[in-house]
Amino acid sequence: MTYGSKALRRAVLRANKMIPEAGLAQLTWGNVSGIDREAGLYLIKPSGVAYDDLTEDHLVPVDLATGKVLAGDLRPSVDSESHRAFYLAWPSIGGVTHTHSTNAVAFAQAGLDIPLLGTTHADTFNGPIPVTRGLTADECATDYELNTGRVIVETIGDDAAAEAMPAALVANHGPFTWGSDPIKSVQHGIICEAVAEMALKTLALNPAAVIPQHLQERHFKRKHGPGAYYGNPKP
Amino acid sequence: MTYGSKALRRAVLRANKMIPEAGLAQLTWGNVSGIDREAGLYLIKPSGVAYDDLTEDHLVPVDLATGKVLAGDLRPSVDSESHRAFYLAWPSIGGVTHTHSTNAVAFAQAGLDIPLLGTTHADTFNGPIPVTRGLTADECATDYELNTGRVIVETIGDDAAAEAMPAALVANHGPFTWGSDPIKSVQHGIICEAVAEMALKTLALNPAAVIPQHLQERHFKRKHGPGAYYGNPKP
Amino acid sequence: MTYGSKALRRAVLRANKMIPEAGLAQLTWGNVSGIDREAGLYLIKPSGVAYDDLTEDHLVPVDLATGKVLAGDLRPSVDSESHRAFYLAWPSIGGVTHTHSTNAVAFAQAGLDIPLLGTTHADTFNGPIPVTRGLTADECATDYELNTGRVIVETIGDDAAAEAMPAALVANHGPFTWGSDPIKSVQHGIICEAVAEMALKTLALNPAAVIPQHLQERHFKRKHGPGAYYGNPKP
Amino acid sequence: MTYGSKALRRAVLRANKMIPEAGLAQLTWGNVSGIDREAGLYLIKPSGVAYDDLTEDHLVPVDLATGKVLAGDLRPSVDSESHRAFYLAWPSIGGVTHTHSTNAVAFAQAGLDIPLLGTTHADTFNGPIPVTRGLTADECATDYELNTGRVIVETIGDDAAAEAMPAALVANHGPFTWGSDPIKSVQHGIICEAVAEMALKTLALNPAAVIPQHLQERHFKRKHGPGAYYGNPKP
Repeated sequence: MTYGSKALRRAVLRANKMIPEAGLAQLTWGNVSGIDREAGLYLIKPSGVAYDDLTEDHLVPVDLATGKVLAGDLRPSVDSESHRAFYLAWPSIGGVTHTHSTNAVAFAQAGLDIPLLGTTHADTFNGPIPVTRGLTADECATDYELNTGRVIVETIGDDAAAEAMPAALVANHGPFTWGSDPIKSVQHGIICEAVAEMALKTLALNPAAVIPQHLQERHFKRKHGPGAYYGNPKP
Repeated sequence: MTYGSKALRRAVLRANKMIPEAGLAQLTWGNVSGIDREAGLYLIKPSGVAYDDLTEDHLVPVDLATGKVLAGDLRPSVDSESHRAFYLAWPSIGGVTHTHSTNAVAFAQAGLDIPLLGTTHADTFNGPIPVTRGLTADECATDYELNTGRVIVETIGDDAAAEAMPAALVANHGPFTWGSDPIKSVQHGIICEAVAEMALKTLALNPAAVIPQHLQERHFKRKHGPGAYYGNPKP
Repeated sequence: MTYGSKALRRAVLRANKMIPEAGLAQLTWGNVSGIDREAGLYLIKPSGVAYDDLTEDHLVPVDLATGKVLAGDLRPSVDSESHRAFYLAWPSIGGVTHTHSTNAVAFAQAGLDIPLLGTTHADTFNGPIPVTRGLTADECATDYELNTGRVIVETIGDDAAAEAMPAALVANHGPFTWGSDPIKSVQHGIICEAVAEMALKTLALNPAAVIPQHLQERHFKRKHGPGAYYGNPKP
Repeated sequence: MTYGSKALRRAVLRANKMIPEAGLAQLTWGNVSGIDREAGLYLIKPSGVAYDDLTEDHLVPVDLATGKVLAGDLRPSVDSESHRAFYLAWPSIGGVTHTHSTNAVAFAQAGLDIPLLGTTHADTFNGPIPVTRGLTADECATDYELNTGRVIVETIGDDAAAEAMPAALVANHGPFTWGSDPIKSVQHGIICEAVAEMALKTLALNPAAVIPQHLQERHFKRKHGPGAYYGNPKP
């Protein structure tokens, strides 16, 4: 028996392969999942498998309610429980991505939000990309990955907030991003890394850089909400 | 009916593909246009289309006088009105490029000109690459993209000035570049990004770096004006 | 006569080719070796040979006890004696890698440990990656490469310590890494470079960045020791 | 009639193609030449030709004594007279390379030598890579490129000095490198860029970084002079 539609399996595989293609992680680092809401399960990259070797058959189906693997011999990504926390908290998301991309990790390790300094950032993220508080020793000791997910949910808020801010940095760890499907979640990972590099270089040039509020709002609304006018149907 | 000559369509397509090849933007970011002055129209990348999918048939013909799409179902790049402002202001230009290249964006976000610190810069740009003033709330609220173009024209000046300085940074946004044809406009985008990275690293080493005026002039004149002696006819 | 099993020769060749593929060195810089403990010899890249030209037949067999070349006309990497010092000191390692990767070299030249600032680092290295003391003039004058190896062993400690910290920076030189086999040793080189770049950028953002001890321990233990739960058998 | 041996033409072409392959310059920037001492001429890249289009037939033969083009319709690189100054001053060199590589340019624009901070640098360059004094207004006004070459010769010294230090930075411009043949000259350009990036990052971590004299000497002598023990004949 296979889990998830053919289209979902293909999207989750493709989105995972985009991680090394976009230079967002080394070796086997990083993972993407995609959810089948009707079936109550998500498909996620297995732990520690090389991207070049990865096929649709390796994707691990995980039960949304319990976090248990539904089939196969492979263990899911160690971050599976973080993904599950997002799917439970935010009904509108369809995919989740975790990477160790260099510049986003630098902000996470520095304990700093990625500040909103330009339109590249404002086009996708409706404010600074927040860094979470650190996990407590207790949160690290038991259910660490689930608690990681919970701390992000605590930082972001509800479903609408997760749509307006599809990324967060776990303190001393790295970025998680999400979207309406697996491909969009990894695209948000690509954008998160790009704006992190831009912000780091901007702050090197001018530590006091800021963006006017009206410019930020204009750009976010070009791409989001009823007045959006960016893009085309795929030709 | 097709708009623009075969040569123009090919050049606009090729110039657009150079954006991802040169690493000047992620995903669907960026756009190039090229103009047919006799027909009073320009061809521009459609909004939000992936570069890998882009063909000549997707290029959107836009009326120079009105900004209206002349044919097809695709919307032009959201930045179309900025391109139009340049074509109206500067009769000698033939192509326009917009990217979100990392180092040029860093200067734009920092609100700083890219300073002229070496011959790489002086070979192409006859002074610091200027950053515009910020758009006002009113300029953001109505005709935002047209106003973006106008603020650049306000910063650069007339046609001769646009030839001597084929680039500008929109504050908190990123670089626009132009040239006598679409390929040249994207080459100026490549050079703008290269000199931005060089300047950022130079300032990290020596915040007081400067270039002597006589060296700057010698290099600009090697490539421009009646005494130019750089280059060959394409062999 | 050939030295080392077919599998070992293939692994040493593959691991060497990973150095340029991962961008860890220019030109002929860097080298990987792998050991055959039963035969008391290791295979190492010849000195100054281009990676593109390198074949299994070029790998130089070196006697573990004496450091003498066992066969062939090619000289081993000049760093062969450093490798030998590691194999003699740490019975559990199976491969050694030396690179001149940019960010790790920057820490080595700065005379600074690569600080442990995040989980990317903690997943592999159980503490800061240490920089050695400088070699004395006497240590440079005689048996320089062997002394380089000895100073690293002095810095790291015993076999168990080498497993928990599979990397060190030689002061004013660059990184050496090791692992249970040649591929793992070069993977540690890749991770060492990645965390060096992350650390350099983190310190630029926040010179006072730190990681809580409980988070560091949790991550190292996810991948090491009896409670490890990362990874899968190769599918 | 063709100028230069088949081997020389092939080496000059190959060395020129290594410039974009190694990421040392954008577009048509940069150039390599190689000399035929017996015939008293050198072959150099034509000005402004794209690397992808470049063939052996495009290489421009230049008379060493006069700087005049010996055949063909193409103009040589604008930097031809700088190359000529080196060939005249240093009888033992066989090739010259000029690039606009980012990190070396940053030091040139900052007006700073690339400091000798590690063994990567010491393996090839017997001291800091020097930046020239600025050219005077008179030197810029007449015979600018020849004067550029002369100022480098003034900075480096005699033939023996040029062998021990096969690179220099022209102030506010960029690196020139040379070697016993064209390929070696571009390899020195690759190394110059690599050590510039390492130095820039080292200084960011520790502005007071230094290397002990005995370590520097040991590494230069591993590869140079009668006691050298690095490398192998090409297998």
